[in-house]
Amino acid sequence: MRSIGHTRWAIAEGHIPGTSTGPAPDLESHETACLLNAGDQDANVTITLLFSDREPAGPYQVVVPARRTAHVRFNDLTDPEPVPRDTDYASVLESDVPIVVQHSRLDSRQAELALLSTMAFAAD
Amino acid sequence: MRSIGHTRWAIAEGHIPGTSTGPAPDLESHETACLLNAGDQDANVTITLLFSDREPAGPYQVVVPARRTAHVRFNDLTDPEPVPRDTDYASVLESDVPIVVQHSRLDSRQAELALLSTMAFAAD
Amino acid sequence: MRSIGHTRWAIAEGHIPGTSTGPAPDLESHETACLLNAGDQDANVTITLLFSDREPAGPYQVVVPARRTAHVRFNDLTDPEPVPRDTDYASVLESDVPIVVQHSRLDSRQAELALLSTMAFAAD
Amino acid sequence: MRSIGHTRWAIAEGHIPGTSTGPAPDLESHETACLLNAGDQDANVTITLLFSDREPAGPYQVVVPARRTAHVRFNDLTDPEPVPRDTDYASVLESDVPIVVQHSRLDSRQAELALLSTMAFAAD
Repeated sequence: MRSIGHTRWAIAEGHIPGTSTGPAPDLESHETACLLNAGDQDANVTITLLFSDREPAGPYQVVVPARRTAHVRFNDLTDPEPVPRDTDYASVLESDVPIVVQHSRLDSRQAELALLSTMAFAAD
Repeated sequence: MRSIGHTRWAIAEGHIPGTSTGPAPDLESHETACLLNAGDQDANVTITLLFSDREPAGPYQVVVPARRTAHVRFNDLTDPEPVPRDTDYASVLESDVPIVVQHSRLDSRQAELALLSTMAFAAD
Repeated sequence: MRSIGHTRWAIAEGHIPGTSTGPAPDLESHETACLLNAGDQDANVTITLLFSDREPAGPYQVVVPARRTAHVRFNDLTDPEPVPRDTDYASVLESDVPIVVQHSRLDSRQAELALLSTMAFAAD
Repeated sequence: MRSIGHTRWAIAEGHIPGTSTGPAPDLESHETACLLNAGDQDANVTITLLFSDREPAGPYQVVVPARRTAHVRFNDLTDPEPVPRDTDYASVLESDVPIVVQHSRLDSRQAELALLSTMAFAAD
């Protein structure tokens, strides 16, 4: 399939609640970057996290194979360091081939969950 | 009316919960691609689904008549194969005339529903 | 202030639930098009509604004065006809000066509300 | 890091509920503009608020240091005047260097919270 998207994306919102009420992993509070690689070459993606009061963390490395999607939970990123909970962050995603990035969060701090989602910002 | 939109769209997020608590069909958990065809020619749309661990499924065929909207529930797609539940997916939508695509989800796994919506990514 | 935006916008998703549980008008289920007119000329906006099974309704007329915002509830549109409840629709917004359009919904069919919001699609 | 984004952004939706049920500050109803400055120069940002029935308020001044994110709660803006509660507003954000802006709201008027988020509209 012909590739779709851009090679540089940004998500300005980021926050993993430190607590959950739902059963893990499905209803655990989590923050996700959904990556779509429609093309015929694997996408080598690096994620850099920005914070309000320290230098950026990363790069985190993710591979999205050709014609595949990867729904990356920020909760699961551990190398080079885990993503701090209850902390505001933002992220920049860079790929060697065009991809599409969508940002979602499931918040289950209270008994009933809340959802948000938006396309990330596509830079050049 | 003059047509609006693009002929190629992508949605990186996709997940149909396997369970619901609300009465079907209104409050059943569902994932929707809302298609708007403002122009005076019918839109022949194909939907291709991408997964994390297998080759894409589809194409699924949808017609959006001229000056009409179609709110397509991924739950209802069955040809060539049903959309698996509790599975991450992404989608690429291609049309022979310009359309606008918006992605929404209603999640009723818990007693109270949660909603998300975003414009899809418009490719060329 | 210098104007911002486009003169033609589309929202593919639209659905006003027929029932609510919250006190009206704040927590009544509603669907909103938020219009921002940053410029120094009044914006004359027309809204056209598209459906799945009939010809479009409208145009509905809205004026957004210079340097003002108008949060238009589709629930309140009555001329030339009210917006049907429990019916899928989409909308096209056209303005004589650039504006910005954002789409939101508050759903209070169940005891706790759910929210969604997205920028509309900006056409030329 | 190379900068990302635009220097002028708009958010058409804005509304801070006057009441909350969750514990402050985490679960207090709030409206946020998440600002991402990926570049190597500090961003001097001004926020102007537009209303439905009066002239705009502001400018509010925010600095986002180089390689940092700032999650600005509209609730906390007080200079030159606090943001009125239970009032519809919209906002225009202008920066001297490229930034990315995402809009989010947490609504806790009822016992369970609701979330929304969308990328702001990027103007030139």
